[in-house]
Amino acid sequence: MGNAAAERTYREVMTREAPAPATPFEAATRDFVFGEVWPRPGLSRRDRRWVTLTCVGAADAPEPIDEHVYAALNSGDMELEAMLEFVLHFAVYCGWPKASHIEGVIRRQWARIRQERGEEAGPLPVLDNAALGLNDWDERIRRGAEEFVDVNLIQAPRGETPYTHAGILNFVFGHVWQRPGLTRRERRIITVACVAIDDSPMPLRSHVGAALNSGDISKEEMDEIVLQFAAYYGFAKGEALGGTADAIWAERDR
Amino acid sequence: MGNAAAERTYREVMTREAPAPATPFEAATRDFVFGEVWPRPGLSRRDRRWVTLTCVGAADAPEPIDEHVYAALNSGDMELEAMLEFVLHFAVYCGWPKASHIEGVIRRQWARIRQERGEEAGPLPVLDNAALGLNDWDERIRRGAEEFVDVNLIQAPRGETPYTHAGILNFVFGHVWQRPGLTRRERRIITVACVAIDDSPMPLRSHVGAALNSGDISKEEMDEIVLQFAAYYGFAKGEALGGTADAIWAERDR
Amino acid sequence: MGNAAAERTYREVMTREAPAPATPFEAATRDFVFGEVWPRPGLSRRDRRWVTLTCVGAADAPEPIDEHVYAALNSGDMELEAMLEFVLHFAVYCGWPKASHIEGVIRRQWARIRQERGEEAGPLPVLDNAALGLNDWDERIRRGAEEFVDVNLIQAPRGETPYTHAGILNFVFGHVWQRPGLTRRERRIITVACVAIDDSPMPLRSHVGAALNSGDISKEEMDEIVLQFAAYYGFAKGEALGGTADAIWAERDR
Repeated sequence: MGNAAAERTYREVMTREAPAPATPFEAATRDFVFGEVWPRPGLSRRDRRWVTLTCVGAADAPEPIDEHVYAALNSGDMELEAMLEFVLHFAVYCGWPKASHIEGVIRRQWARIRQERGEEAGPLPVLDNAALGLNDWDERIRRGAEEFVDVNLIQAPRGETPYTHAGILNFVFGHVWQRPGLTRRERRIITVACVAIDDSPMPLRSHVGAALNSGDISKEEMDEIVLQFAAYYGFAKGEALGGTADAIWAERDR
Repeated sequence: MGNAAAERTYREVMTREAPAPATPFEAATRDFVFGEVWPRPGLSRRDRRWVTLTCVGAADAPEPIDEHVYAALNSGDMELEAMLEFVLHFAVYCGWPKASHIEGVIRRQWARIRQERGEEAGPLPVLDNAALGLNDWDERIRRGAEEFVDVNLIQAPRGETPYTHAGILNFVFGHVWQRPGLTRRERRIITVACVAIDDSPMPLRSHVGAALNSGDISKEEMDEIVLQFAAYYGFAKGEALGGTADAIWAERDR
Repeated sequence: MGNAAAERTYREVMTREAPAPATPFEAATRDFVFGEVWPRPGLSRRDRRWVTLTCVGAADAPEPIDEHVYAALNSGDMELEAMLEFVLHFAVYCGWPKASHIEGVIRRQWARIRQERGEEAGPLPVLDNAALGLNDWDERIRRGAEEFVDVNLIQAPRGETPYTHAGILNFVFGHVWQRPGLTRRERRIITVACVAIDDSPMPLRSHVGAALNSGDISKEEMDEIVLQFAAYYGFAKGEALGGTADAIWAERDR
C-alpha cells in the first residue's frame, strides 16, 4: 500500500493528520500498522479498536491511550456508553488499576471532544442501582453458573473458593457478562486480547477455544485479531495467541 | 452488602469518602471490590494491602498507586519503614523500574500526610552500611543457600551462573529475605502476588507451593489472596494463580 | 523485500527454515518482522538479539523464548557466558521470576545444541565467590555511587531506604553494572528494552537519556532499537519509547 493510502487510513482511524515519519519506528507505524494492518478486510474497524484499546490500556503508555481513546470516540465508532462498559470488562480481565487509568482518560478525552464541538460537558448521571442485577444470591449464583457454561462451553466450577464463588459465579458471570452495553461477541474479542496479554496458558486456551467453538468468532476473524493484537502488543505474545488458535482449530478438524 | 456498608468499607480502606458511581466501572468498584472483596474475613486488611500494593505497583497506572500508597500509610496499617522494605522486595520480583516509581510515590505521599497533619517532614536518615549483612562471601553464599532451602523447601541451586550465584544465593536469599522489616509471611504474600503477575510457571508453582507447604499461609488464606489478587490484577491471572494453588493442595492431599 | 530475501533472513536469524505462512500473522511475521525489521542496517544482529531476547523473556510466551534462545546460541552470535550474564541483568530490570524461566531455557537449549553437535554437555562449573566484588561495605557503597553517576549521568541517591541502599548502591550499581561479561553498551540496550516494557515514566526517561547522552548509543541506533522493540513488544509501548527518545533528543538540540 502506498504512502497516500496509509496516510488516509491513519486519518480515518486516528481522526487527525498523519505525522511525517522521522524515524524507522514512525515509518513502520505508517507503512505496517496503518498501511498493512488496519485496512485489512475480515474484521470491522470497531472490532479492531476493541483489540487496540485493550492493548494500549494494558501497555499503559500514556500517549497511545489518550490518542486511541480520543480516536475511538471522535470517529463515532464507539459510543461513550460502550466505552465505559468496556472499562468494566477490561477491569475484570486486566485488573482494576489499569482500568481506573483508562476510565480517567475516557472522561478527559470525552470532555475534550465535547469542547472541540462546542457542546456542554456536564457530569455523568449517577447510575441506577437496579442495574446491578439479581440480589437473590442463590438465584444469582445459579444464573452465574448458567452464564459460565454458555460463555465457556465447559462445566461451571462449584463455588468452593472466594475466587470461584464471590468472584467468578457471583460477579464475573453472575453479572458482568450478562450486562447490556456490549454484545457477547465484543466481550469475547476484548477477553481474547486480555488473556493474550496475560498469556497464562489455561485462560488463553479456554477463552480462545470458546470464542471459536461457539461460532461467535470465525477462524478468519480470529486470524485478524491475532495480527491486530501482534501489532499493538508485539509479535512475541502474538505468536503465543496465534499458536493457541491454530492448535485449537487443528484439534477441531480432527 | 448494601451501598452504605460498601461506602463505609471504602472510607476505611481508602481513608477518604467514596465517590458516587457514574459509570459501570465505578459501580462495580463500590459493589464488588469494596462491597464484596475487602470486607471478607480470612485475611487481615494489612495482608490485603500487600496484595493490592503489589498489583497497583506492577500495573503502574499512576492514580491507583498514589491512592493506595496514601491509604496504606494514612490508615496507619503500614509504617513507613515497612513500606520502604516492601519496595526492595517488590524490586526483586517485579523489577527495579516499577520499584523506583513506587518508592517515589511513597516519599511524596508520606510528605503529603505529614503536611496534612501539620508535621515536619525532613529527609530520611542515611542507612548504616552494617545493615548490608555478611561480608564474608563464602559464609554469605553458604547462608544464602540455607535461606533458600528454608524459604523454598527445595534444594538450593549451585552457584553456576551469574543469576544463581551473584543473584539468588548472594543477594535475594543471601540478603533480601533475611532482612528485618517484613515478616517472612509478609514476604511470601508479596512474592505470591509478584509471581502471579509474572506467571512464569515454575516460580509460580514453587512460591505458591512453599507458602502453603511451609504452613506460613493456610489454604483458606491463599484462597483470599487469590480473590484479592483477581480483583486488582484481573481474573485471567487470578485463574492461573487459583488453579496453581488448587493443584498443589490436591497433590498434598494425596 | 521479496519473500526469498525475508526467508533467507529468517534462516539466518532463527537458524532454521522459515515456515510457510498460513495466517495473516504468519505472513506479517515473514514480511514485516523478517522482511523489514531484522535486515535493516544501523544495529548489529547481536544488538537486535538483546532487544528481542529481552522482549520474549518479558512476554514469557514459552515457544518464542525457546526459539530465540536457541537461535541466539546456535547462530554463534552469543556465547553461553554472555547469555547467562544477560539473565542476571534482565532479572534486575524485569524481575526474578521471568529471569528464572529464561535461565532454565538457556540451560535446556544449550544442552540441545551440544547434543545436536555430538558434543558432551557436562554441568557448568561453580563460580568463584571472589567474583562477587568488593566486600568492604563502605567502599562498595562509595564505588556503587560512582558507578551510578557514570551510568546515569545524574547524582547518586543517598542510601536512605532499603531500595536505594541495599538495592541500588550495593547491588545494582555496586555490583551488577560493574560485572564483566557484557559491555556497558550492551547493558544499556538490555536496560532500555526493560524500562520500555515497564514504562514507568522516570526510569524510562533516565535510562534512555543516559544511553543517548553518554554517547554509548547514537540517536540512529536508538531509532533502530525502538523499531526492533516495537516489533517484539508492540507499537503501543514502542510509541512510548520512541516518543521518549525523540523528546530527549529535541531537548539536547536546544
